[in-house]
Amino acid sequence: MTRWAAAVEYLGTAYSGWQSQSHAPSVQAALEAALSKVAAHPVAVSAAGRTDTGVHAFSQIVHFDSEARRSDYAWLLGTNSNLPEDVSLRWVQPVRADFHARHSAIARRYRYVIHNSRSRSALLEKRATWINWTLDAEAMHRAAQALVGELDFSAFRGSECQSNTPMRCVTDIGVRREGDFVLLSIRANAFLHHMVRNIAGTLIEVGQGKQPEAWVAQVLASRDRTLAGMNAPAAGLYFVAADYPDEFGLPATPDFWLP
Amino acid sequence: MTRWAAAVEYLGTAYSGWQSQSHAPSVQAALEAALSKVAAHPVAVSAAGRTDTGVHAFSQIVHFDSEARRSDYAWLLGTNSNLPEDVSLRWVQPVRADFHARHSAIARRYRYVIHNSRSRSALLEKRATWINWTLDAEAMHRAAQALVGELDFSAFRGSECQSNTPMRCVTDIGVRREGDFVLLSIRANAFLHHMVRNIAGTLIEVGQGKQPEAWVAQVLASRDRTLAGMNAPAAGLYFVAADYPDEFGLPATPDFWLP
Repeated sequence: MTRWAAAVEYLGTAYSGWQSQSHAPSVQAALEAALSKVAAHPVAVSAAGRTDTGVHAFSQIVHFDSEARRSDYAWLLGTNSNLPEDVSLRWVQPVRADFHARHSAIARRYRYVIHNSRSRSALLEKRATWINWTLDAEAMHRAAQALVGELDFSAFRGSECQSNTPMRCVTDIGVRREGDFVLLSIRANAFLHHMVRNIAGTLIEVGQGKQPEAWVAQVLASRDRTLAGMNAPAAGLYFVAADYPDEFGLPATPDFWLP
Repeated sequence: MTRWAAAVEYLGTAYSGWQSQSHAPSVQAALEAALSKVAAHPVAVSAAGRTDTGVHAFSQIVHFDSEARRSDYAWLLGTNSNLPEDVSLRWVQPVRADFHARHSAIARRYRYVIHNSRSRSALLEKRATWINWTLDAEAMHRAAQALVGELDFSAFRGSECQSNTPMRCVTDIGVRREGDFVLLSIRANAFLHHMVRNIAGTLIEVGQGKQPEAWVAQVLASRDRTLAGMNAPAAGLYFVAADYPDEFGLPATPDFWLP
């Protein structure tokens, strides 16, 4: 039996999220079906993070066990051949038996992509959130710094969140403009349900000038979800990477190319 | 009557190319239908360049005439609301009556996007050409310089090309690597049918080491299409921009964000 780690890229538009569900297509089910064909036995995968309906991944990390003897490259090409076109593996490699894609991860990184333009973009359809109103990315960046630290994120927690605790540790958060794009990057030990999209929706209100920068800290302190901004659309959200201790020897995540 | 200029962005995947055809969906037909709704009368458009089935555009330029009194922004929002999601306008503005999207253009620019990676990319599906074999972009760049000038491009001309002459003037051609991407950028006064894709296919053979750099000049000199490389897939090709004399006052094309 060998434990394998793999990086999964997907366009989440056609899926009801990462996790397998009985009555809706999931990325997990698509991946397990493809891996099972290559392995010639049923394969189950565990992932670093669950993503919601319509959310994408640049490099979701999974692990699975198999007794099949396959090279890294045979797994990669065979699985990609059996996956639908909107899901692909970036790499596959053997990993220590005590590696767990979810439990071994020390951090997850997300990016929220806003196309900030007077007109919608055909090429970015379902790949970014279009906001017509010019955003002040520097104000958003300053306001976001109130969210760094081991904090109670109840105000940014989705109503269906099943976590035992609202405490999460955000180690980095940044907002920057690149041409017509405003990009929110956030790294934390883990995330609550809808946390990134609720933070994005809140920072967008600051970027629009509807709320002052200090408002973000006030929303956080309130622990009241009804005070935060909207749950920003799923189409702009990407699971960019998960970080693991170096001892597992996983490949570094390349720079995200979008935009 | 006012003449209007507009920039059109599209994902070409679902279309049999730019130009209207009787039995297949075209970008032109979709755009004319949307503009006609906003104008409340039939609108016909002319474009800077015709693109083939599956070829995309970042900023195709068109013009049209209308007696409807609409602001720039009313045209932009109204048309984008009536277009399918894979076509959008970037801007619309009034232009001198002697402007012609095709005849006034002094140059067209294309980019060919190669995803040069061991594994295919779900997020780039239909938006780039995947080549597994590592390409030598610097060799491709050097070889490509043989194509600069007022030259006979018969060797890179599609069999269905209707041009009176095989002469075209390429003013700039460059190949560069950016991470997992190899990008071919080319600017010419105009292009023959399939010219960019035939050049891309030829340069790819140099990048793979299957042909020496000097081979590109030999293919050009032969004027023989059967000697050139493959017609590279449409999915990697983008019409990036058309250039016009400054006197028409059109907006500058922003930098292409892909990748």
